[in-house]
Amino acid sequence: MINNKRIPLYLQLMDKIIEKINAQEYREQEKLPSERELCDMYGMSRITVRQAMQELEREGYIYKLHGKGTFVAPKSYSQNLVKLYSFTDEMRKIGKIPTSKVLSFEAVEAEEAIGSKMGIHPKEEVYKVVRLRLADEEPLMYETSYIPVAKFPGLTQETLDKQPMYEVFYNDYNIPVNKAVESFSPTLVREEEAKHLRISSKQTAMLIKRYAYSDKQLIEYTITVARGDKFEYKVELT
Amino acid sequence: MINNKRIPLYLQLMDKIIEKINAQEYREQEKLPSERELCDMYGMSRITVRQAMQELEREGYIYKLHGKGTFVAPKSYSQNLVKLYSFTDEMRKIGKIPTSKVLSFEAVEAEEAIGSKMGIHPKEEVYKVVRLRLADEEPLMYETSYIPVAKFPGLTQETLDKQPMYEVFYNDYNIPVNKAVESFSPTLVREEEAKHLRISSKQTAMLIKRYAYSDKQLIEYTITVARGDKFEYKVELT
Repeated sequence: MINNKRIPLYLQLMDKIIEKINAQEYREQEKLPSERELCDMYGMSRITVRQAMQELEREGYIYKLHGKGTFVAPKSYSQNLVKLYSFTDEMRKIGKIPTSKVLSFEAVEAEEAIGSKMGIHPKEEVYKVVRLRLADEEPLMYETSYIPVAKFPGLTQETLDKQPMYEVFYNDYNIPVNKAVESFSPTLVREEEAKHLRISSKQTAMLIKRYAYSDKQLIEYTITVARGDKFEYKVELT
Repeated sequence: MINNKRIPLYLQLMDKIIEKINAQEYREQEKLPSERELCDMYGMSRITVRQAMQELEREGYIYKLHGKGTFVAPKSYSQNLVKLYSFTDEMRKIGKIPTSKVLSFEAVEAEEAIGSKMGIHPKEEVYKVVRLRLADEEPLMYETSYIPVAKFPGLTQETLDKQPMYEVFYNDYNIPVNKAVESFSPTLVREEEAKHLRISSKQTAMLIKRYAYSDKQLIEYTITVARGDKFEYKVELT
């Protein structure tokens, strides 16, 4: 059972760097030595250093900024998928100030694509709301929501600018959101989204589709693009 | 725009569209450009575009809705995150034949990186098992598992080749897996993984970290890279 193989160099290097991050020798948001410097420091080849860095990036320990170098990643947001959550509440819980910026607000026909998902007629009107969600001014998610106009007559952008959406639903329309079905898949950030999220358009993101219900009525369909370098989603299975 | 003379034009076009679907530039359930638009975009004849679309439909990448247009087909596997699941059981449920190919098996020191995650000493030995998971011969996931040697003495690659891992744990060691904590984040497939998964290394994937427990003991830590074009993960929140 004893392994005679030597431990790959890139794993050894990863380990050294993780130790330093854990020991806060390299602190959150601090710049790491360059690849060239790491080669010299540890007497390793460029290819080994690069492999270690790629692995560290994937595991969320570090992140790269084009032309700037490599930095120690800040704590990302770990969202527990236990019960219905809202961005607003989750951010408040951890002492962040959540804000939303409504990028666009319009009433449009659902058409086939959205109508078929929401179980409404393609000609029925829905509000299409595009919002940027921020925590402490940092943009984190890009959300496109569809809401049936018939259920929320008179909804305006001004209202959504001032109050969290679910609070508007409850306070102004007496419609509580009490169930949601979410599906998660990986995606690449699109140019328009990247611009607002202030990241590169080649970055990965989590694509989340939420169907939100009040009792058994579907009241919202939202597509969220959440920054892959910031969020992970956790679930406990028994 | 496209001009490789040896490959038929419709195949070249198919490839371009598949690339865009895989990169999620065209997302699941989204409407594709019309045949006429595709003709203009790629400078191809209607007949070529039509042939590409027919082929894509046959291969399950897209579907047509009469009078509405062409849409990107949904993911093939929707995993419900309700209770503890195993790849083997999930595939059997939907009539697929699950297989696993052990790509490597060795006992190594946990080191800082894995030791700190598993709550064991860096010098303690773990089995490192890399497996490819397939359904009906199609490679879907690339998994790297770490299992403490002390809990499973004498585990061999041959055993894992023949039986699902959790069945080995239970049948041979009387250790049932009854809890798991999983975290999900988006990633890009790496070259080595892409090769085994038979996809391009620029594709997105879901990175799943699973901590599996028997009663309160951590018995397995697995990193899964699941094809982003095949899987979505669903959760109901109340």
